[in-house]
Amino acid sequence: MATQGQVITCKAAVAYEPNKPLVIEDVQVAPPQAGEVRIKILFTALCHTDAYTWSGKDPEGLFPCILGHEAAGAVESVGEGVTEVQPGDHVIPCYQAECRECKFCKSGKTNLCGKVRSATGVGVMMNDRKSRFSVNGKPIYHFMGTSTFSQYTVVHDVSVAKIDPKAPLEKVCLLGCGVPTGLGAVWNTAKVEPGSNVAIFGLGTVGLAVAEGAKTAGATRIIGIDIDSKKYETAKKFGVNEFVNPKDHQKPIQEVIVDLTDGGVDYSFECIGNVSVMRAALECCHKGWGTSVIVGVAASGQEISTRPFQLVTGRVWKGTAFGGFKSRTQVPWLVEKYMNKEIKVDEYITHSMTLGEINKAFDLLHDGTCLRCVLSTSD
Amino acid sequence: MATQGQVITCKAAVAYEPNKPLVIEDVQVAPPQAGEVRIKILFTALCHTDAYTWSGKDPEGLFPCILGHEAAGAVESVGEGVTEVQPGDHVIPCYQAECRECKFCKSGKTNLCGKVRSATGVGVMMNDRKSRFSVNGKPIYHFMGTSTFSQYTVVHDVSVAKIDPKAPLEKVCLLGCGVPTGLGAVWNTAKVEPGSNVAIFGLGTVGLAVAEGAKTAGATRIIGIDIDSKKYETAKKFGVNEFVNPKDHQKPIQEVIVDLTDGGVDYSFECIGNVSVMRAALECCHKGWGTSVIVGVAASGQEISTRPFQLVTGRVWKGTAFGGFKSRTQVPWLVEKYMNKEIKVDEYITHSMTLGEINKAFDLLHDGTCLRCVLSTSD
Repeated sequence: MATQGQVITCKAAVAYEPNKPLVIEDVQVAPPQAGEVRIKILFTALCHTDAYTWSGKDPEGLFPCILGHEAAGAVESVGEGVTEVQPGDHVIPCYQAECRECKFCKSGKTNLCGKVRSATGVGVMMNDRKSRFSVNGKPIYHFMGTSTFSQYTVVHDVSVAKIDPKAPLEKVCLLGCGVPTGLGAVWNTAKVEPGSNVAIFGLGTVGLAVAEGAKTAGATRIIGIDIDSKKYETAKKFGVNEFVNPKDHQKPIQEVIVDLTDGGVDYSFECIGNVSVMRAALECCHKGWGTSVIVGVAASGQEISTRPFQLVTGRVWKGTAFGGFKSRTQVPWLVEKYMNKEIKVDEYITHSMTLGEINKAFDLLHDGTCLRCVLSTSD
Repeated sequence: MATQGQVITCKAAVAYEPNKPLVIEDVQVAPPQAGEVRIKILFTALCHTDAYTWSGKDPEGLFPCILGHEAAGAVESVGEGVTEVQPGDHVIPCYQAECRECKFCKSGKTNLCGKVRSATGVGVMMNDRKSRFSVNGKPIYHFMGTSTFSQYTVVHDVSVAKIDPKAPLEKVCLLGCGVPTGLGAVWNTAKVEPGSNVAIFGLGTVGLAVAEGAKTAGATRIIGIDIDSKKYETAKKFGVNEFVNPKDHQKPIQEVIVDLTDGGVDYSFECIGNVSVMRAALECCHKGWGTSVIVGVAASGQEISTRPFQLVTGRVWKGTAFGGFKSRTQVPWLVEKYMNKEIKVDEYITHSMTLGEINKAFDLLHDGTCLRCVLSTSD
């Protein structure tokens, strides 16, 4: 390719300061070094984690940076030693790497991978601990090892899932974060069995994916809990078959759910990121076996609490990251499941825009009618 | 038997008020009603839960009462409809019932049984919601459905484990609480695998039973943590092969353990009942898979806390009651294991006294050299 080995200048949305509108800039993207892959991002969605870091509340947030972590594109070029993908391959960049070599990957117990974490956590690449992005010679930090709000990005090879080239990228970009997180929380982390009762706190994209996962796992009662009752209509399509609005009740929501389910649910999922709701989600679980999974990401410094008696009497408190899916191995499998119509993706996409409209798209995230807004990065 | 159907007057240690010495009294023990069993208690040990309720810190503690829940004896008589035991059978009364009929027993997921909880929780028997104990006509509350600090007690039939008559009662009385709790926390709740690293907070009877359970499960590193370094010598006999005294370190104990184990332990157990230690026990677990089990009982009203990130990154927080053992089914099995020399019991008994010396025995509980003190109830 003509661009291989060259710096590419392209459009990207740069976050210069917390809470200030992103700026569409001409950004220089350096060629991939050893073990790196440069990807032409074609479609990227927005997720609440982008908004969280952009808000400045994330103490690990570094500015200026290029946000974005739920996307799809095609490999433009690869660095030395990269063997598993080549230019032209359709890929989904994965914020959760999978090196298949580290203690974590080899444990068989977790999808967390330790290989590039020390670099992606501080906005740089492992090889030289520098950024591949710059504007007029001034470096711009990477974000989550993905930085997909750009026409081109550079990621570590262990963070690239090669997918079926027939898959529609404007849809399957969603398989980079929210949908797998919800499905995997049910399938991998909680391991919901047929006949279970499930409570889902928060009916955004992740909560709806939890509902879909629970439905496919054979859960009988799938109770959605949200302070916006309008969400129930949409949620029904994903498997939610009962709805509770905490605002309609005087009692704490955990007591409402315990009463409703003769002692509590078998599984609960917190899909908001609110530590009080995390407590309620645990405490609405059935004594003896109820398992609560924290899926939402709480603001920094906040803590969860409960009486230890809740655990001593048999409840289990867990969490999940990327739904426990091994990214490089299982994202392509999720794409296949979508292609075979075994999982929904299209139904989560409520808005489509261009990268240039990204600030409007961020505003939509706070609108109850928006699940996912997909941005096309073409000019 | 001559006593069958009659009120028996015998000696018992009555707790009239929190924190006041127990009084050895002549107590009237009514005959067992339908579904009840009157047991001649021969040996009873003391446990910290007795001391906790006696201290007055347990808001559910009712006075006057007869404490005690770790004991062994022989059935004196049975009430109507009791078929599984008969007079003369050697038994261990179990504070955790097993009815084999309730939602909990039938779930296959928990050892908690709901059948008599509503009565045992408030110091009475299910049948008439009254006590079988009185002193000069004034009722004395039951405790934990067992009340073993008495020469005779009445319990529900679902709370009686029939054991091998050849088993020495002065030893196997310990299988009524502490030892099974520790072993089961490892075998049933955590399910420790061979090669695991384990951290045990608190090296009392329960902590040592956890060590023994971990050793038999094939754990490689068994790290004991206690603020009394003298406990390491004894702990070695139960399987502890490394020792850390938090007082010897400036850093929080969770950081010390994480450093010592290249990222944290696979399993940790809190065997004290201290909510700060419960947090440390969770946070010293390895990212991705570390599981922490709360075994100790915290004082009422206290809460556990942590950052949700601890769970989102793969740690699991659980608890255990009676080690997850099904009491009537598995206590006899534990007795067999002891008879076959597969588990220790004798080694936990550091002191032997008589029921009349119970106040001295309570003092010993706060002495680091005492594991279990077994009281003979004969005059």
